[in-house]
Amino acid sequence: MTDRTEPAEPPDDVSEVSHPSRLLSAAVGGNRRALAKLLTMVECGGRPGRAVAALSYRSGREAATVGVTGAPGSGKSSLVDRLVTTVRAEGETVGVLAVDPTSPFSGGAILGDRVRMQDHALDPGVFIRSMATRGHLGGLALAVPEALRLMAAAGWPLVLVETVGVGQVEVEVASATDTTVVVVNPRWGDAIQANKAGLLETADVFVVNKADNPGAAETRRHLEQMLDLSVPGPWRPPVVDTVATEGTGVDQLWAEIRRHQQHLEDDGGLRLRRRRRLEREFRAVLGAGIERRVEAVLAGGELGGLVEDVVDHRVDPYEAADRLLDTLQRR
Amino acid sequence: MTDRTEPAEPPDDVSEVSHPSRLLSAAVGGNRRALAKLLTMVECGGRPGRAVAALSYRSGREAATVGVTGAPGSGKSSLVDRLVTTVRAEGETVGVLAVDPTSPFSGGAILGDRVRMQDHALDPGVFIRSMATRGHLGGLALAVPEALRLMAAAGWPLVLVETVGVGQVEVEVASATDTTVVVVNPRWGDAIQANKAGLLETADVFVVNKADNPGAAETRRHLEQMLDLSVPGPWRPPVVDTVATEGTGVDQLWAEIRRHQQHLEDDGGLRLRRRRRLEREFRAVLGAGIERRVEAVLAGGELGGLVEDVVDHRVDPYEAADRLLDTLQRR
Repeated sequence: MTDRTEPAEPPDDVSEVSHPSRLLSAAVGGNRRALAKLLTMVECGGRPGRAVAALSYRSGREAATVGVTGAPGSGKSSLVDRLVTTVRAEGETVGVLAVDPTSPFSGGAILGDRVRMQDHALDPGVFIRSMATRGHLGGLALAVPEALRLMAAAGWPLVLVETVGVGQVEVEVASATDTTVVVVNPRWGDAIQANKAGLLETADVFVVNKADNPGAAETRRHLEQMLDLSVPGPWRPPVVDTVATEGTGVDQLWAEIRRHQQHLEDDGGLRLRRRRRLEREFRAVLGAGIERRVEAVLAGGELGGLVEDVVDHRVDPYEAADRLLDTLQRR
Repeated sequence: MTDRTEPAEPPDDVSEVSHPSRLLSAAVGGNRRALAKLLTMVECGGRPGRAVAALSYRSGREAATVGVTGAPGSGKSSLVDRLVTTVRAEGETVGVLAVDPTSPFSGGAILGDRVRMQDHALDPGVFIRSMATRGHLGGLALAVPEALRLMAAAGWPLVLVETVGVGQVEVEVASATDTTVVVVNPRWGDAIQANKAGLLETADVFVVNKADNPGAAETRRHLEQMLDLSVPGPWRPPVVDTVATEGTGVDQLWAEIRRHQQHLEDDGGLRLRRRRRLEREFRAVLGAGIERRVEAVLAGGELGGLVEDVVDHRVDPYEAADRLLDTLQRR
């Protein structure tokens, strides 16, 4: 960990240490290119990805994770950038995972556009990485938890996850963290849109960013009203006003994130939440595996056009399901 | 079909004709107790339910279906009652399926409470039935499409499906029809709640019921604004004002439902919608079958406490999924 306070100086050429466990040792020792390579392996899935996943899983290390989501243009990147500054001012190291389900590019590609993040690009206490849809079976919803475990295994105790939009995958990704921050703007309908995207249920902290714009008070009131309407739990998401471009309110946001993490630790919710996430992940992996096998049977033609037979009323759905399951088990 | 214009007079004791195909013949001949018995078989699932499902599937007959959903107390029952009056005034026969996922009771139990429906109880051109969660694998989301096919096979060309609430199952059930009617009231937040429940995407027709109450114009405006914000399609859901208790606006509602069904027929959407529903149903049946087998493996103990092993970091999710799939295929 102390290596990370020095500018990254790869101890050896990464291409020569392609075995996952040697790469992980290098990553733990502060080799950023090794970590980047491991993350690409996770992203691309397949056999190497799986070896990396098993390795980081066995390390047993877990990072504190914070997801930041909200509509495009709401200022998530600026907020994350400012949060990094705040965290670094406290002397902690921090990883950032920028997730874009709509992009086939990752790593340097998007990163080049993240101009604001350049302040941190040379800081060895910050590791920034973009992730996009590559070959991973199950997509980003499954690749991201693996990436987070890998970063934890490599010695990054805190990771911020930023998503580009509020589609189903983004919300899934952002809510698969310890603390989920939902960013809205003072715009008509923004609170409603957040609600519609299912964010009300997943948000642990709300941010009204660009709070110096007209309508901020109304947006905040909308959020509070919607929170009033929801089922009360032990934690009521606070609503924080920020102006990310000027850094206003970011320290308070960080304090609320910390308060939420403390709350989770105090009432045992953190362990429970992580266990539930793991169980959900296991079932998702299982579902993806089953789906792959089912699609293979359907595509294999052994059963003819089974789906067509159903929709054309030649075979009833139960008969069709039985035929498929029998074929699946005989394989 | 002509038998139905006569008061139901069972041709023979239903208990003696328990074979599904004989029951169905009796139901087609206008025997209401035979149809009721078949519906109970569908509801309870298992082998008899499956035989009934196959039988109605093979008939190939389909009913025009209209789902009516909305928050409890929004006046769905009154609306459905009035719609039945309108349909009967046009000389058509109509079935009503009242679906309650929260109740273990069906048939007569809930029906006794449906005081308003008593006007139609003696009308041989109306068949009313409540459905609740019984033994059907896959629950009401799978039992209702089967019940609708059965009613179509028994010669009921139009069925209204009423759900009690706006939970996920209710929305699923109501939207598995040709035309989905969403009922809201002039209450603060009702439009937002409808949006939250995912009803904006599934509604073909909106109803602001109790439109003589204050706030009706605002609720209507909220709905129109949310429709403005959604992705435009070939059909924009109309918003109809009604006062169901007085019958106001019900004829217009029926006209809009008819207009939607005409629209679906004209642009080929009806056939496509029904095929998609069938494919979804097949995949749901398949999913339920797989889940049952997976749970059997997990419960069987052959793999020990596999889920516990995952959440306690002893086995990684991929390894666990593989072990389970292998066990499943060896069975």
